[in-house]
Amino acid sequence: MFVKNCWYVAGWSHEIPKDGFLARTIVNVPLLFWRDNDDNVVVLEDRCCHRGAPLSMGRKEGECIRCMYHGLLFDKNGQCVGAPAQERIPPQAKVRTYPIVERHRWLWVWMGDPTLADESLIWDTQWLDHPEWRCEPGYLHYDCNYLLIADNLLDFSHLPFVHPTTLGGSPDYAEVKPKVERLEHGVRMTKWVYNTEAPAYSRKFGNYPPDAKVDRWMYYDFMIPGVLLMDTGMTPAGQGAANNMENSIKFRACQAITPETENSTHYFFAQAHDFLIDQPEVTHSIYQSVITAFEEDKNMIMAQQKNLARDSEFKMVPFSIDAALGQFRWLINRMIQKEQSADDQQPAAEAARKLVSGLR
Amino acid sequence: MFVKNCWYVAGWSHEIPKDGFLARTIVNVPLLFWRDNDDNVVVLEDRCCHRGAPLSMGRKEGECIRCMYHGLLFDKNGQCVGAPAQERIPPQAKVRTYPIVERHRWLWVWMGDPTLADESLIWDTQWLDHPEWRCEPGYLHYDCNYLLIADNLLDFSHLPFVHPTTLGGSPDYAEVKPKVERLEHGVRMTKWVYNTEAPAYSRKFGNYPPDAKVDRWMYYDFMIPGVLLMDTGMTPAGQGAANNMENSIKFRACQAITPETENSTHYFFAQAHDFLIDQPEVTHSIYQSVITAFEEDKNMIMAQQKNLARDSEFKMVPFSIDAALGQFRWLINRMIQKEQSADDQQPAAEAARKLVSGLR
Amino acid sequence: MFVKNCWYVAGWSHEIPKDGFLARTIVNVPLLFWRDNDDNVVVLEDRCCHRGAPLSMGRKEGECIRCMYHGLLFDKNGQCVGAPAQERIPPQAKVRTYPIVERHRWLWVWMGDPTLADESLIWDTQWLDHPEWRCEPGYLHYDCNYLLIADNLLDFSHLPFVHPTTLGGSPDYAEVKPKVERLEHGVRMTKWVYNTEAPAYSRKFGNYPPDAKVDRWMYYDFMIPGVLLMDTGMTPAGQGAANNMENSIKFRACQAITPETENSTHYFFAQAHDFLIDQPEVTHSIYQSVITAFEEDKNMIMAQQKNLARDSEFKMVPFSIDAALGQFRWLINRMIQKEQSADDQQPAAEAARKLVSGLR
Repeated sequence: MFVKNCWYVAGWSHEIPKDGFLARTIVNVPLLFWRDNDDNVVVLEDRCCHRGAPLSMGRKEGECIRCMYHGLLFDKNGQCVGAPAQERIPPQAKVRTYPIVERHRWLWVWMGDPTLADESLIWDTQWLDHPEWRCEPGYLHYDCNYLLIADNLLDFSHLPFVHPTTLGGSPDYAEVKPKVERLEHGVRMTKWVYNTEAPAYSRKFGNYPPDAKVDRWMYYDFMIPGVLLMDTGMTPAGQGAANNMENSIKFRACQAITPETENSTHYFFAQAHDFLIDQPEVTHSIYQSVITAFEEDKNMIMAQQKNLARDSEFKMVPFSIDAALGQFRWLINRMIQKEQSADDQQPAAEAARKLVSGLR
Repeated sequence: MFVKNCWYVAGWSHEIPKDGFLARTIVNVPLLFWRDNDDNVVVLEDRCCHRGAPLSMGRKEGECIRCMYHGLLFDKNGQCVGAPAQERIPPQAKVRTYPIVERHRWLWVWMGDPTLADESLIWDTQWLDHPEWRCEPGYLHYDCNYLLIADNLLDFSHLPFVHPTTLGGSPDYAEVKPKVERLEHGVRMTKWVYNTEAPAYSRKFGNYPPDAKVDRWMYYDFMIPGVLLMDTGMTPAGQGAANNMENSIKFRACQAITPETENSTHYFFAQAHDFLIDQPEVTHSIYQSVITAFEEDKNMIMAQQKNLARDSEFKMVPFSIDAALGQFRWLINRMIQKEQSADDQQPAAEAARKLVSGLR
Repeated sequence: MFVKNCWYVAGWSHEIPKDGFLARTIVNVPLLFWRDNDDNVVVLEDRCCHRGAPLSMGRKEGECIRCMYHGLLFDKNGQCVGAPAQERIPPQAKVRTYPIVERHRWLWVWMGDPTLADESLIWDTQWLDHPEWRCEPGYLHYDCNYLLIADNLLDFSHLPFVHPTTLGGSPDYAEVKPKVERLEHGVRMTKWVYNTEAPAYSRKFGNYPPDAKVDRWMYYDFMIPGVLLMDTGMTPAGQGAANNMENSIKFRACQAITPETENSTHYFFAQAHDFLIDQPEVTHSIYQSVITAFEEDKNMIMAQQKNLARDSEFKMVPFSIDAALGQFRWLINRMIQKEQSADDQQPAAEAARKLVSGLR
């Protein structure tokens, strides 16, 4: 079960080659991404309406796609406009298209009712291509349900345990509970930890004295359906924290977890920085640290998933650190229920409308 | 669900080694093929009646097979005729045998009621060992249901799209619809395409001028449960087609798709030719072209199958090119229903008979 | 379905490293084995009560284990005694422990009701570390249900067929039926075969003349839940068998099959000998022969399992050699039923008790 009426991050802009396709499954639907003559992204269901062959095995012919099984031709609206030895193309011969927005290097696709596709619900990831920030695009594929990754991202008390030598810092970091606020479409976490150890991956960019303590902050929103937008960093300890940002190290993280199937997930991420932006090796070093840390998460989450799969009756004991993930799961479930009851009512509403129009 | 009362192609004659076994699963039943002292093929269920061990891990002892788990000995009728430390062999200790016919290099096995095994339902594949024809035996294994392969073989409009550089020819080939006739046990397709491109794989054997056009024909029967028998070829364009076969290139194709399980299929095939039959390299070149093309089909069909497996509610939009495959699937379903209702009636009939005999 | 109230062999003592963990799943429960400061073995469920992460990815801190996902700390009774940013640890925050006994190099774990854990039900495997015997520890992992392996061990008529060049001897060995007795917690098999071939693996240690015949004996108990304890060997033929053990070759085999999941099994084994005990190469040669033979069993059992999985309606035809395995399966089923009906009665008994105490 997935939320449908929301924008999912489907990929990085550069993943669609100039004259080719990106084939990617989102919430269990195979999708085909390509560009029309004006370089606009087109998204079609990657499954020919005739016999189900993938259109991604087909070829572009101008602004159309030809299925290379039996030669059906589809325009960019998904309508079949040609078929060998066929006098009349059945009008229902079409594949579904999806609203798509390309913004700040990310592709956002709307998998639900297209009339509800509201672009104001595309979260702001301006740091991905902001001239004063730099980042390297990241991607990981997970063989587990996306909610286990959401759980991980909604509780940063795991940092000193899962990432002791990368993002982590010292155990006292976990002792400070974040402030958790529910937003209309997500959860906001706020946390300052004072006089603590700097995380290994970023310590080196501050020119701080060895063993110098820092004040670390972390403000982030985790938005439906699984987008993390974070302002994080550190200042030298004792200089006033947020009131004196001199010599601070700042990051803006953009991360998105997008379900592929019930049991697999796409994970897109970048860790933008505003310092040393003319040194690509700094950007690359940050990327390397982040992906190393995310592999640490993946090891843990996959082991957790294996353990959970073994016993469907296992009951988790809740701790106070679970506040944010509990709220997020509640939001997701509420949206799914709303969408399902709307689906259930639709046939009834339609039947009623037909009945009424029959009476007139 | 499979048709049971029909002859399935189980393999090539040469696949049964002189003193050994061929183990192969057909319609989900593990079978053991071997030869008795008179070189006749014997087929036993490849599952010892005692604990289910495969007899194919056993050994031949004269005209018997010994299971090498606990030493049970079976004769060629499947009857257990020996067991260590057993005073009396239980009469129900036997494994099933199946009617088998070896003809024109193919092994045909009847998986249903043996009393219905009618040899006149073995289709004629004389070109496999005809002295005036040559072919090389082919085999492919598919991890998909056999009906997806039947669909492929029942609609040759895919040729110019899936096989552009092998069997295909030019796109106009797909524009000509074949004549489709229903037979009692299959479907007949007839098609001539005039003044078209010669397919790459056979063009070279005609000594036609470069870019010379040809008239191509294709007559084939696709018979229950999945046997394709085709007369195909080409004549130089404009010389009268079927009325003047001078300088024509002729093939006789024999192909059989045999379900292994619900999700896997054996595919046996040969493309016989009656020209240059003293040149084995010609025969081999034709075999190579055909297997290359069949791998192209396999790529497409496996991708299609993956797409179909993802969404059990996907509805195919029918096109007129689907006429033959629609008729064939109808035939198969009708036979399965007939066999099932016969199975359902059997216990009732037996109960009635017992009742009547009790009344006497 | 597994018997729970019994001792399962969980591993070899040496498998728990001094400062680390052994993680192993038994009857579908992931377990973590480690040693406290007094070198006593501790067993915890290897699944953190918080979010299900494996504790085996954690670290030892004194006599506690820290989960390295969110930092929860568990003592050796499984109680959570620390959690970052948590004022009060919920008392239900604990992981289950299991009774464990380390004896004669084997670890025995009780997976059921700990109040029923009766150490007198730990079978005697003294030969594993007896000063007058030597053996090398063996382990195999099977991808099949443990009962198929039990079947194999309960019917040694397979020896000359599955193991002709290792344990087997000549076919006459299978012609002698063992005496089978039901014990309270298992089955006892007794068999002497006179004037037969010596098995290849042990013949060489007897200095018998080439082709000399032997008298072979085999006494063994196969105990719930799957422990084989065997006294076996041979004397030169004709000297009086059990009445004159001169120049005999003696073995004591200890084997245990422990379900990992419904479809996988741990197999622990050793073949102890009391001759040439100062020659480690003899001990190793015996180990090599045994593991070679057990791989032969595994090949057969895995092929059998594949055949059985193909057809859930396959009915085995019983033979007289199945007497012991039939009795053992009956014992296992009776124990499972008893445990299940006890589980069913527990809530009723509890409800009755509450009702009564409410009435007082």
